[in-house]
Amino acid sequence: MASKKTAKRATAAKKAVRKPAKKAAKKAPRKAAAKKNVKYVYSFGQKTDGDATMRNLLGGKGANLAEMANIGLPVPPGFTVTTEVCTYFYDNGRTYPESLQSQMETAIAKMEKEMGTKFGATDGMPLLVAVRSGARDSMPGMMDTILNLGLNDDSVEALTKATDNPRFAWDCYRRFIQMYGDVVLGVQAGPDEDIEPFEGVIEGFKHEKYGKDVIDSSLTAEDQQELVKRFKELVKVRTGKGFPTDPWEQLRGAAGAVFGSWMNDRAMVYRQKYGIPAEWGTAVNVQAMVFGNTGETSGSGVAFTRNPANGENEFYGEFLVNAQGEDVVAGVRTPNPVAELQEVMPKSYKELLQVRKKLEKHFKDVQDVEFTIQEGKLYMLQTRNGKRTAAAALKFSIDMVKERLINWETAVLRNPADQLDQLLAPIFDLADVKKAKQIATGLPAGPGAASGKIYFNAERAVDAEARGEKVLLTRVETSPEDLRGMIAAEGILTARGGVSSHAALVARQMGKVCVCGAAELQIDYDKKILTVGKQKFKEGDYLSIDGTSGAVYAGEIKAAPSEIIDGLLNNKKAAQKTEKYQNYVKLMGWCEKATRLQVRTNADTPAQTKNAIAFGAVGIGLTRTEHMFFEGDRIDAMRQMILADSLEGRQKALKKLLPYQRKDFAGIFRSLKGLPATIRLLDPPLHEFLPHTKEQQMDLARTLGIKVETIMQRVADLHEFNPMLGFRGCRLAISYPEIAEMQARAIFEAAAQVEKKGIKARPEVMIPLVGFKKELDIQTAIVHRVAKEVEEKKGVKLTYSVGTMIEVPRGALTADEIAETAQFFSFGTNDLTQTCLGMSRDDTGSFLGKYQEEEILSANPFASIDQTGVGQLVETAIEKGRKTRPDIKLGICGEHGGDPASVKFCHNVGLAYVSCSPFRVPVARLAAAQAAIEEKRAK
Amino acid sequence: MASKKTAKRATAAKKAVRKPAKKAAKKAPRKAAAKKNVKYVYSFGQKTDGDATMRNLLGGKGANLAEMANIGLPVPPGFTVTTEVCTYFYDNGRTYPESLQSQMETAIAKMEKEMGTKFGATDGMPLLVAVRSGARDSMPGMMDTILNLGLNDDSVEALTKATDNPRFAWDCYRRFIQMYGDVVLGVQAGPDEDIEPFEGVIEGFKHEKYGKDVIDSSLTAEDQQELVKRFKELVKVRTGKGFPTDPWEQLRGAAGAVFGSWMNDRAMVYRQKYGIPAEWGTAVNVQAMVFGNTGETSGSGVAFTRNPANGENEFYGEFLVNAQGEDVVAGVRTPNPVAELQEVMPKSYKELLQVRKKLEKHFKDVQDVEFTIQEGKLYMLQTRNGKRTAAAALKFSIDMVKERLINWETAVLRNPADQLDQLLAPIFDLADVKKAKQIATGLPAGPGAASGKIYFNAERAVDAEARGEKVLLTRVETSPEDLRGMIAAEGILTARGGVSSHAALVARQMGKVCVCGAAELQIDYDKKILTVGKQKFKEGDYLSIDGTSGAVYAGEIKAAPSEIIDGLLNNKKAAQKTEKYQNYVKLMGWCEKATRLQVRTNADTPAQTKNAIAFGAVGIGLTRTEHMFFEGDRIDAMRQMILADSLEGRQKALKKLLPYQRKDFAGIFRSLKGLPATIRLLDPPLHEFLPHTKEQQMDLARTLGIKVETIMQRVADLHEFNPMLGFRGCRLAISYPEIAEMQARAIFEAAAQVEKKGIKARPEVMIPLVGFKKELDIQTAIVHRVAKEVEEKKGVKLTYSVGTMIEVPRGALTADEIAETAQFFSFGTNDLTQTCLGMSRDDTGSFLGKYQEEEILSANPFASIDQTGVGQLVETAIEKGRKTRPDIKLGICGEHGGDPASVKFCHNVGLAYVSCSPFRVPVARLAAAQAAIEEKRAK
Repeated sequence: MASKKTAKRATAAKKAVRKPAKKAAKKAPRKAAAKKNVKYVYSFGQKTDGDATMRNLLGGKGANLAEMANIGLPVPPGFTVTTEVCTYFYDNGRTYPESLQSQMETAIAKMEKEMGTKFGATDGMPLLVAVRSGARDSMPGMMDTILNLGLNDDSVEALTKATDNPRFAWDCYRRFIQMYGDVVLGVQAGPDEDIEPFEGVIEGFKHEKYGKDVIDSSLTAEDQQELVKRFKELVKVRTGKGFPTDPWEQLRGAAGAVFGSWMNDRAMVYRQKYGIPAEWGTAVNVQAMVFGNTGETSGSGVAFTRNPANGENEFYGEFLVNAQGEDVVAGVRTPNPVAELQEVMPKSYKELLQVRKKLEKHFKDVQDVEFTIQEGKLYMLQTRNGKRTAAAALKFSIDMVKERLINWETAVLRNPADQLDQLLAPIFDLADVKKAKQIATGLPAGPGAASGKIYFNAERAVDAEARGEKVLLTRVETSPEDLRGMIAAEGILTARGGVSSHAALVARQMGKVCVCGAAELQIDYDKKILTVGKQKFKEGDYLSIDGTSGAVYAGEIKAAPSEIIDGLLNNKKAAQKTEKYQNYVKLMGWCEKATRLQVRTNADTPAQTKNAIAFGAVGIGLTRTEHMFFEGDRIDAMRQMILADSLEGRQKALKKLLPYQRKDFAGIFRSLKGLPATIRLLDPPLHEFLPHTKEQQMDLARTLGIKVETIMQRVADLHEFNPMLGFRGCRLAISYPEIAEMQARAIFEAAAQVEKKGIKARPEVMIPLVGFKKELDIQTAIVHRVAKEVEEKKGVKLTYSVGTMIEVPRGALTADEIAETAQFFSFGTNDLTQTCLGMSRDDTGSFLGKYQEEEILSANPFASIDQTGVGQLVETAIEKGRKTRPDIKLGICGEHGGDPASVKFCHNVGLAYVSCSPFRVPVARLAAAQAAIEEKRAK
Repeated sequence: MASKKTAKRATAAKKAVRKPAKKAAKKAPRKAAAKKNVKYVYSFGQKTDGDATMRNLLGGKGANLAEMANIGLPVPPGFTVTTEVCTYFYDNGRTYPESLQSQMETAIAKMEKEMGTKFGATDGMPLLVAVRSGARDSMPGMMDTILNLGLNDDSVEALTKATDNPRFAWDCYRRFIQMYGDVVLGVQAGPDEDIEPFEGVIEGFKHEKYGKDVIDSSLTAEDQQELVKRFKELVKVRTGKGFPTDPWEQLRGAAGAVFGSWMNDRAMVYRQKYGIPAEWGTAVNVQAMVFGNTGETSGSGVAFTRNPANGENEFYGEFLVNAQGEDVVAGVRTPNPVAELQEVMPKSYKELLQVRKKLEKHFKDVQDVEFTIQEGKLYMLQTRNGKRTAAAALKFSIDMVKERLINWETAVLRNPADQLDQLLAPIFDLADVKKAKQIATGLPAGPGAASGKIYFNAERAVDAEARGEKVLLTRVETSPEDLRGMIAAEGILTARGGVSSHAALVARQMGKVCVCGAAELQIDYDKKILTVGKQKFKEGDYLSIDGTSGAVYAGEIKAAPSEIIDGLLNNKKAAQKTEKYQNYVKLMGWCEKATRLQVRTNADTPAQTKNAIAFGAVGIGLTRTEHMFFEGDRIDAMRQMILADSLEGRQKALKKLLPYQRKDFAGIFRSLKGLPATIRLLDPPLHEFLPHTKEQQMDLARTLGIKVETIMQRVADLHEFNPMLGFRGCRLAISYPEIAEMQARAIFEAAAQVEKKGIKARPEVMIPLVGFKKELDIQTAIVHRVAKEVEEKKGVKLTYSVGTMIEVPRGALTADEIAETAQFFSFGTNDLTQTCLGMSRDDTGSFLGKYQEEEILSANPFASIDQTGVGQLVETAIEKGRKTRPDIKLGICGEHGGDPASVKFCHNVGLAYVSCSPFRVPVARLAAAQAAIEEKRAK
C-alpha cells in the first residue's frame, strides 16, 4: 500500500511542479523580489492579508490560518514570512531582504495590539510567540515548532507577575530554552551520548534533589528556575555563547532555523523522492502563544469534524484540561473524548461546534483541527483536510453530496481508488489483532484477512478442506500445480515471489487473501515444518494473514466478510438495508456516469466471470486457457500431449482435451450473456505442466503407461535457462499448430452451442507473445480456417475477432505491421514490463527493496505501470496500430489493470478498456471514473 | 554460414526491389504494355536488340546472351520474350498480348536465316530450339530447360537425314518428349509411384529387351525410336491428349510453362523469402540448339575464366568430347580438364581463350561460362559472374586492380565480408576430410578446423593439455567455470546452445575453433562417454571439428594455420613473402582508406588485445571484467566476497581482488599503447561464480573455512527463475557499491601506474544494464569520486570517461535522460535482442529452426541484428542521446559487431565504432569499408 500511495503522491507532486514552474518562467526574474516594495510578511488575526488560495506563497499552514481568520474564527494573531524569503535566503548567501525586519516589526505591533501584550515586555504581559515552518505541502524532516519565544530572564518575571503563576512562567521558559537550544542552537546528543543533553540535565537534577525519577509536573517553580539556570550553562558550554536574550535575535534565529531546515538532508531526500523542487521554499509562521495549561478553565484538544474511522457525522476527538496541545498527543495523560467538553466547558464546546460547522461549510471537506482554550476563550490553532479510512471516505462523500456541500463528481474524487478494496475485504477485528503475535511481514498481495491451518502442499490442503478445515496454503512459491490447493484454501502464504508472482496473480483473480514473499519464513517440505526465527509451526497449526497489510500472525484470528461483497455476490436483500452497501452502489453509479474507459475482468471460470459481472465488469479481457488444464484429469491428457513424440500422438491427446475446453468456454459464454471474452491461446512453457519430483514422475509414468525415463528426458529437454524468454506463447503453436487448432475449435464449437440456445457469444481470440507479424499471420490463418469449418458444420454465423497480446517490445515497435492482421491489441503489461526493464518479476526480490530505497524506482513496476519506459512502448504501439487500423480495439490485461495510477494512464493514452482480476474491478472502475473527471476538469 | 548468406541476399534483394518499384511508379500504367507497338521479343545473334543493362526486361540470362552477342562472341541465335509478357500473362487471365505471336515469328525467321535451318522442317535441317526461363536474378524453383523443341515425327526424319545420324536424331526426340512431357504436360510421378513415369518406361524397356539395366548410350536408334513410341503412349494415357506435333504449339506451351512456373509454390516461397515482388516476372529465352554430341569433333564444357578455388589467373574448367552440356555436370562420364582441349581441338581452344579474355575485359569480373563445340565450331551458351572461395575472391580482386580492370573500391566490394574468416582460419586438408567420417553437425560458431582428444570437463582438459595432448573440450554447454578448459583446448564442442551461447562467444573472443549446439551428441558426464546414435566415444578419443561448416568428424584430421594469421601474429617476415599475405595487407589498406566506422575489439587480456591490434582494432570496445575473476586463485576471493554477510567481509575479499584487477588493467593499457579501452564493471549474476556440485561446494567450504551449508544456502538464495532478467549488471553494484568502488580503483590505479611509465591510458568506464538514469547517477558518482581520490593520491591527471551500455529497451527509450549523465553509449545488442524480442539466446534452440523454416525470422537474430525491431531501439537511443548530448560517443559491443550485415547497419545509423572479438576484426573492417563505399556510390 505504501508504495502505491507514494506513487500517487509523487504523481500529484509532479503535476503540481509543472504548472507553477511554467508560471514562474513567465514572471519577472527572481531578483525583482529584492525590491523594497515587496510584501514579505502577511498578517492574520483581526486584519488578515492572505487566504487559502495563497498556499504557494504562505505555505499550507499559513494559508489556512489566514483563511480561518478571514471567516471569523478565533485564531491567535500572527504573521507568515513568505516562501519568497526562503528563496531569497538561499539566493543571497543566507541573508534576508532589507525590508523584512521592518515588515516583521509592523506585524508584531499588530499582534501586540490585538493581544494587549508586548514582545519582550519586562512589565505587563509579554507577547510570546510560536514559530513554525510551513511549506506548500506538509513535509517531514523540516523544523517543527518553537514555543514560548520571547522569554528571557526579564520577561519571565513579567510573565510570572501577569499570570501570578511562577511555576507556569518558569516551566514555559524552561521549555523554550530546551526547544530553542536543541533546534536553533544545535545542542543535541553527540555520537557517544545516549540521552539528549537537556533531558540529561533534568534527569540528573531529579536524582540529585529527589533521589529518583519523578514526573515533570511534580517539579516546583524553583525546580524549573534551577533547570533554566542549568540549561543556560549547558548552552554556554556546548555553543561557547550565552543563550540569546533579545527576543528579536531569538525570532531571527528561529526563522533562520526554519529556512535552514529546508536544505537539511531529510528534507532534501523527501523532496527528491516526491519531485518537489527546491525553489518552492518554506514559509515561517509566527503566532501569538495561547496557553491551555493555565488552570482548570484552560485546555487543549485535537478533533475531526466527522469520525475519520467510520465516517459518522459526529464531532470526533479528544481534549485535556489544563494542558498544552503536545500533551494531548504525547500520551502521558489519557485525554477525554471531545464530547465530554460539553460538561466541563459548555460554552467553549458550543463555540467549537459552531467552528466545526463553519469549517466544513467553508472548506467543504472534513477538517482535522487543533484548538486551545485559555481561560475559557477558544482559539483555533490549525485546520487541514482530515485523513480517513476508506469506509469513512465513502460515507463522507455520499453524505456531503446529500448535504449539498459537494457535487457527485467531487464525491467520486474523494474516494481514494487504491483504498477501495479495504471496503470489500474481509477483516480481522482490530481488538483481536492487537492481542495476536505478528511473526513476519510479507507483501500484501490479495487484500483481506484469513485464518487457517497451514498446509504445505496442494493435495493435503485439498484433503484438509474436504475434512471441513480452514486451510492456509503455505509454500515457498506456488506454481500452476498448486491451483487446486489454492482453490481449497482460505488464504495463500508464500516465502518467495513479488506482488506479481504466480501466487499473487492467481489469488487476486480468485479473490483469495494472499501474503507473498514473506522472506522470514523457512519452509521444510519434507519435515512439514515452517520456521520463523526460533519458532516452529507444523502442518495443521493455525496462522492468520492480513493481505491488506502483509502481516502474518501466529494462531487463529476471526475474520468477517464485508457487507458490500456479501451484497454483491450473495445476499443482496439484506445488504440493501445497510448504509454501506447503499453508499457503495451510489458511488459506483456515479462512476458509471463519469467513465469513458471500460473495465473488463481476467477470468478463467464461469464463477469468476459471474463475480466480475456483479462487480461491474463489461466483459472478459483475459481468459488464460492454460489454467483450465489443471483441473481434474485434464492434466493427464495435457501431459500426454506434451510427451507425445508425433503429430498423431499429440492430436490424440488434444482430442481428449477438446471437450473439456469446449465445456469451459460454453460456461463462460453463458455467464457473459453476450458480453465479449478475450481468450488467450496456450501461453506458458510446457514444462510447467509436467511433474518435477521423481515420485510424481513415476506416478505419471504408471498412469500413461510409459517409461519414467521418457518423462525425465522430456522434462530435461524442456528445461530452460530463462523460461520467461523461451519456448512459450505463440511459439508453442507455431511449432505445434494442432494446439491452436484444438483451442480454436473448442472456442467456436462452444460459441455455436450457446448461440443455438439463443445466447450471443462474442469470443475474441488472442494470440500471445507476438513479436513478428508473420507469427500472427500463421496463427490467425488457423483460427479463421477452423471458424469457417465450424460455421459450415454447425450452420451458424459466428461473431468473433482475432488479435494479439502486445507483450514484448518488438511487438510494440512493429505494431503498424502487426495491426495489418490484428483486429485488436491487448497490452500484456506484466511481460512488457519484464522485457522492457529487463527484470523478471520473480527475481526482483533481491534488489527491488534497495531500488526503492535509492529512489531508482518510485513504485514496484509490476504493481504500477512504469509510465516513462513501458508507457512509451504502449503509446508507440497505440499510435502505430491506429495508423494502420484506425478502429483497432485497444485494451490492457494483466495486473496493472487493477492499479489506480495505471488505470489513469490507460485512460489518458486512450485505451478502450482495462482488464483486471474480478475483485479489483471496483477499484478500476473508480479509478477510471476519476481519470475522466480529472480530465474534464483540466480542460 | 547459410543464414548469413541468406540475410545478405535478402538485403540485396530488398534494395533491388525499392528502386525499380519507384521507377515503375513513374512509368505509364501497366495497361500501356498491351498496346500493339510494344516490343515483346528481343532477338540476339548476328543482330541483337538487347544488352547487359536490360536485366529487368530480359532477365539475367537473356541480357547476358544479348551482351555476348553484342561483343561478337559466337552465341547461337535466339530471342528473349520479355518479363512484361509475364506480367501481362497474369494480369490478363493467362493470355498473351496479341502481337506476341507475330513478333516471335519474326524472331524465329531471323534464327532460321542465321542458322540456315527451318523451324519444324520436314526437309533439310530443322531448327531446334532450347527454351529456358530467366528472371532478373537466377531463381530456384522455376522451370529450367526444354531442349530440342521443334521435333515431331516428321522433323525427326529430316534431322536424321540432315545429320545422317538416326541414333542422334531419335535420342534428341526421345529426350525432348521426356522433358516436355514432364515439365509442360505434367506427366510426373504420382504420390504412390516411386519412379518418374518416363524413367519407368525406359527401365521396363531395358529389362524387356536386354534382361538387365544397360547404360543409355548402349541403346540403339531403334531402341530410341521404340522409346519415343512408348513415351507418346504414356503421354496420351496420362494427359488424355496426344503429344503436340506443331512446333508452334510446342513453343507456346513451353513459354506458358515458364510463365506458369513463376507462380508455383517453390518460386513463391523463394520470392517471399527474399522479398522479390511478383511483378518482376520472368523472361523466356528461346535459343537455337547446337549439339556437342554429334561426334568426335563436337563437345561441351563449363569453365571459369580464372580458378575459383585459389584465384589463380588460369583458365579453369572441364569438357567432354561428343557430349551435351548436361553430360558434363551429370557425373556419368568423368570430364577432362579444359586445358586438354588444346590437344583435342586446338582451334576451338584458342578461340575459347580469346573468348575468355574478351569476357573478362568486358564484364570486368571472373565469368562462369558454358560452351558447346558443334563439329569444330564454338558456341557460347551462357555467361555469368563466377562463384568463388574467399581466397579466390581476394586474389581476383587484387589482380584485377593490377590489371586495371577495376578500381580499388570495387576490389573491396568484391570480397564477401562474411567469408573473410575463411582466409584466417586453420583448415583441414580437403582430401583428409573426404576420407573422414562425419558423425554430427552443429552450428559453426568459431571458424577453423581443430582436432583433439575429447575431454568432458575443464579440469581434466587442462591436465591433458599439460601432458602435451591436443584437447577438444566437449560439453553439453559451457559456463564461465569452463574458461580454463577452453583456454587449454584446441577447440570447443557443445551439444546445446546457439551461435551466441557462452561457448560460442568465448571461443570467438579467443579465436578458438568451436562447433556448438550439435544436438545429436549425448554426453554422459558421469561415465565420461559421448554417444552419437549407436557410436560411443570415450574420454581421450579423437574427434575433429570444422568450425566453419559445423561438421563433427570421428578421428583425427590434420589442420594447418592460415598464412595470414601466421603473418599478423607470429611470423611476419616469412608471411610477407607469400602472395596471400601481401594481398590481404593490400585489401585492409584499402579498407582503412574507405572506412568511416571504426572497429574495436572485445578483449579481456593483454594477449587478446595484442592480437586484435594486429588485426587492425583501434581500441577495446568491451572488456568483461568478470572473466578475470576466473583465473587462478582469484575465484576464491571472489567467492569469499559473495559469501560474506557483511560490508566488512565483502570489502576484505575485494581488497584481495584489487591487485589482480589492477595488474590486468595495467597489462591491457600497456598493450593498447594509448588506444581507448571500454571497461565494463561486473555484470553476470553472482551465482555464476559459485560452485554448483556438492563436491565442489565441500572443497570451497574447506578452502574458506566455512560451513558447506552456508554455501548451499547462498547458492539457493541466488537461484533465479530467469537469471537473464535478474540480479545482475549495475543492480549488483547498486546493492554492493563496494564492488564498483574496487573496480574503479583498480582501473584508475592501473592507469596512473602506466601513465607514470609514459604510456597513455584511456579507460572508458562502462556501467552495465542501465534502465534508469538514477542507476547511472549513483554508479557514476562512485567512479568520479574514486578517480579523484586516485588522482590526488598518485599525483596524476587521468583521462577517462563514464558511460553506459544500452542493453534493455528502457535504456534505449529513456536515452535522453540517461545521456545527461552518460558520456558514451555502447549498445549491448545481445541483451537488447533478448529483451526486445523476449527470446533468451540460450533457449531459442527449441523453436528457432521452425521460425526460420516458417520464414518468421530470416536470420538468427543473435547472429545478425534484427534491424526492424532491435534496430528501431538503437535508432531511438541514438536520436534521443544526441538530442541531450550532441557529441555523445556511440558504439556497439557484443557479437553483432562482427556480422557484416550488422556492421553495415551500424555504419548507416551513424555509430562511431563497432566492437567484436579479435578474430572478427578483419571481417568487421571489411564490412565497414564496404558500407562506406556503398554509401558513397548510392549518392
